[in-house]
Amino acid sequence: MADGHAVTAPADTRIDDVQTYCRQLAESARLAWRGLGAVGGERRAEALRETARQLLDRVDLIVAANRMDLESERGAGLSAAMIDRLRVDRQRLEKMSRSVAEIADQTDPVGQVVSGNVLRNGLRLEKVRTPIGVILMIYESRPNVTSDAAALCVKSGNAVILRGGKEARHTNGAIAEVVRAALGTAGLDPNIVQIVQVADRSAVGHLLRLDGLIDLAIPRGGESLIRAVVDEARIPVIKHYTGNCQIYVDADCDDAIAERICVNAKVQKPGVCNAVETILIHRESAERGLLTRICNALADRGVEIRGDSATRKLFAAAAAAAEQDWSTEYLDLICAVRVVDSLDEAIEHIDRYGSKHTDAIITSSIAAADTFVQQVDSANVFVNCSTRFSDGGEYGLGAEIGISTDKLHARGPMGADDLTTTKWIVRGSGQVRE
Amino acid sequence: MADGHAVTAPADTRIDDVQTYCRQLAESARLAWRGLGAVGGERRAEALRETARQLLDRVDLIVAANRMDLESERGAGLSAAMIDRLRVDRQRLEKMSRSVAEIADQTDPVGQVVSGNVLRNGLRLEKVRTPIGVILMIYESRPNVTSDAAALCVKSGNAVILRGGKEARHTNGAIAEVVRAALGTAGLDPNIVQIVQVADRSAVGHLLRLDGLIDLAIPRGGESLIRAVVDEARIPVIKHYTGNCQIYVDADCDDAIAERICVNAKVQKPGVCNAVETILIHRESAERGLLTRICNALADRGVEIRGDSATRKLFAAAAAAAEQDWSTEYLDLICAVRVVDSLDEAIEHIDRYGSKHTDAIITSSIAAADTFVQQVDSANVFVNCSTRFSDGGEYGLGAEIGISTDKLHARGPMGADDLTTTKWIVRGSGQVRE
Repeated sequence: MADGHAVTAPADTRIDDVQTYCRQLAESARLAWRGLGAVGGERRAEALRETARQLLDRVDLIVAANRMDLESERGAGLSAAMIDRLRVDRQRLEKMSRSVAEIADQTDPVGQVVSGNVLRNGLRLEKVRTPIGVILMIYESRPNVTSDAAALCVKSGNAVILRGGKEARHTNGAIAEVVRAALGTAGLDPNIVQIVQVADRSAVGHLLRLDGLIDLAIPRGGESLIRAVVDEARIPVIKHYTGNCQIYVDADCDDAIAERICVNAKVQKPGVCNAVETILIHRESAERGLLTRICNALADRGVEIRGDSATRKLFAAAAAAAEQDWSTEYLDLICAVRVVDSLDEAIEHIDRYGSKHTDAIITSSIAAADTFVQQVDSANVFVNCSTRFSDGGEYGLGAEIGISTDKLHARGPMGADDLTTTKWIVRGSGQVRE
Repeated sequence: MADGHAVTAPADTRIDDVQTYCRQLAESARLAWRGLGAVGGERRAEALRETARQLLDRVDLIVAANRMDLESERGAGLSAAMIDRLRVDRQRLEKMSRSVAEIADQTDPVGQVVSGNVLRNGLRLEKVRTPIGVILMIYESRPNVTSDAAALCVKSGNAVILRGGKEARHTNGAIAEVVRAALGTAGLDPNIVQIVQVADRSAVGHLLRLDGLIDLAIPRGGESLIRAVVDEARIPVIKHYTGNCQIYVDADCDDAIAERICVNAKVQKPGVCNAVETILIHRESAERGLLTRICNALADRGVEIRGDSATRKLFAAAAAAAEQDWSTEYLDLICAVRVVDSLDEAIEHIDRYGSKHTDAIITSSIAAADTFVQQVDSANVFVNCSTRFSDGGEYGLGAEIGISTDKLHARGPMGADDLTTTKWIVRGSGQVRE
């Protein structure tokens, strides 16, 4: 790079001692993070604006790297949908650049006073937002996560170590290279953002044991990835399971609203975590014709229905649902449907099979809505609206690093604010305790 | 018990299959927690008031159990200080009862709306506090932690599994028995509060792997206990290290204030986590006589000084500090003293040796105070006041389950509010996403 800062090694660099490499990566991230403490919010924002610009300037570099990934994956027989997820073109890079620019313009969370007051003895007490430190981001998603996660971490004053999926390693490497160069141009330490350059799977395990160097791991992806991370981690983890979302259609509800919401939640964008996967219908609603109405509306839009026996009696075109259908996140035009005898049965089903991401009830009954909201133990609990609204942007929170299905620290859409911790600051004039 | 509820088995019950026992304990806690979801805040508070009453009514039972622990520990050669920590008498039980009654009267955190607004599409968005679930509390502290932790968990709508130190197992068992009986009297499920009845050390390891049944582990005690918990846990952990607190006396400061604060922080109650353990003094202050003044004031109050070579030149009575002194939490009338050449050197020392609990600067300089507050990465950072103020009660937060030295979820004094998570609730009237 013209600015003289080293860029990351190409993604296929051979590294002999993975453990030493991981420790050095984390140590340099920690050092860079310490330096970032003295950098004000406006300089961090300006570095992100520079990043947004350089992402546009370096389209060719990134698209060329992406072509390498696409070609090797096509050979590996990836599905068309997966290939589409992996593809990066000018239009998608413009969107990534815009997202980074928007994050730059968000309110700086660092230094925000969360609460504070003057104590009786004159001590001035403040609880203030501060960066967490070094964050390890492990993901299997689209390459835009690379720039989004880097931007959210820089925005909130953290350093980040990125580890994307191997199918996107050239693309992610190129994006990270551009981000690092832009940070360098803006006068920040490029090591604030690092990407794991070894293909060796043991690298993640080594990083997850670096208590004291890495403060937090955020895995984002399928259940097996997250289980593996939790198993190996000796540092705090915030899990971002993909969503197995459910809608319960109550006995007492507006049929037109129920149909509209079920269709929207399944069809509007089936490949995302807040799309519905299972519809539970109260027997009374099912038997007065609402099950057939909803299933027909879904089938008309190309959705395959997999139902329990009660569903198949009312909608003959339904395939038989197997036990595993209830816990499957299809991310596709497939919907499981089950008839339940009560609200309690629906809540039990959600508790047993759901991923505690987003669940909705369609009802006209205040009592049913209140019970559902109180007893469903999910990050997002909805009444009479589509699960598709479960999103930081829709909530007005800005870009999100994911949707936490965990209960500790952050739950639901997790943005720059949730990438901070707090510090108690107490200022006195010589006070001692009696 | 007269109310017909089963009480816990005596602490020395033999249990053959520890793993099965642990799973059953967690399953019954989870079931009890589910039931607690329908119990309003006032009923939870009333159950705690009943607990406070029964703790007083059952003084004899608890003191008798305590005598068994004291007698077996005296034989084991415990120090007088440890014996004192372990002792429970009527006066201490009255204090425990009062603490439970105070927790009962705190504002209910469950259901508090943290934020909320109406979105452009008419959706009503609320972020609401909800209980976390089942909490595993592992501690080595005084027996009052048993009743405090149980009360804070019930207050915040959680179930709790208690595992205290083996030296207090009869005492903790008796306290838990009384708490459980009181919950039963008040009509709640006694299984909301459970105590691990097996001495077998593997029990903690089994419990720490019950992802899906236990939501959070809170270890409170020495570093070795906490390391062991982090190593074994597959569930989230919030660490409560005891405190290795430090005071930095800047070049530019009020000498009388510096002396007063150092003395108070060391002497007023040396056996607690927010007492100071190391004093760092800027060379200029040290050489103008302040080091001798502070060391004399401490020595006059019976404090043993362990200094670096510069300290020993200025205060000949000081013993030589070894490397390990800087990271030792004495909890006693011993103080490490070191001369530093700059604020930066002090911050580096704190970063390297401290436990990130509470650290203070004594200075008249705005620039020095600002740098210290910004760069010291501890839960509590103080300017010109005693470290002894680091306490939930002093902060006006009510009783605390401990002082979190972690960065995630809760940092610093951790009370009933921090034993909750949040849930996003969205209420609509048929909205779908375009």
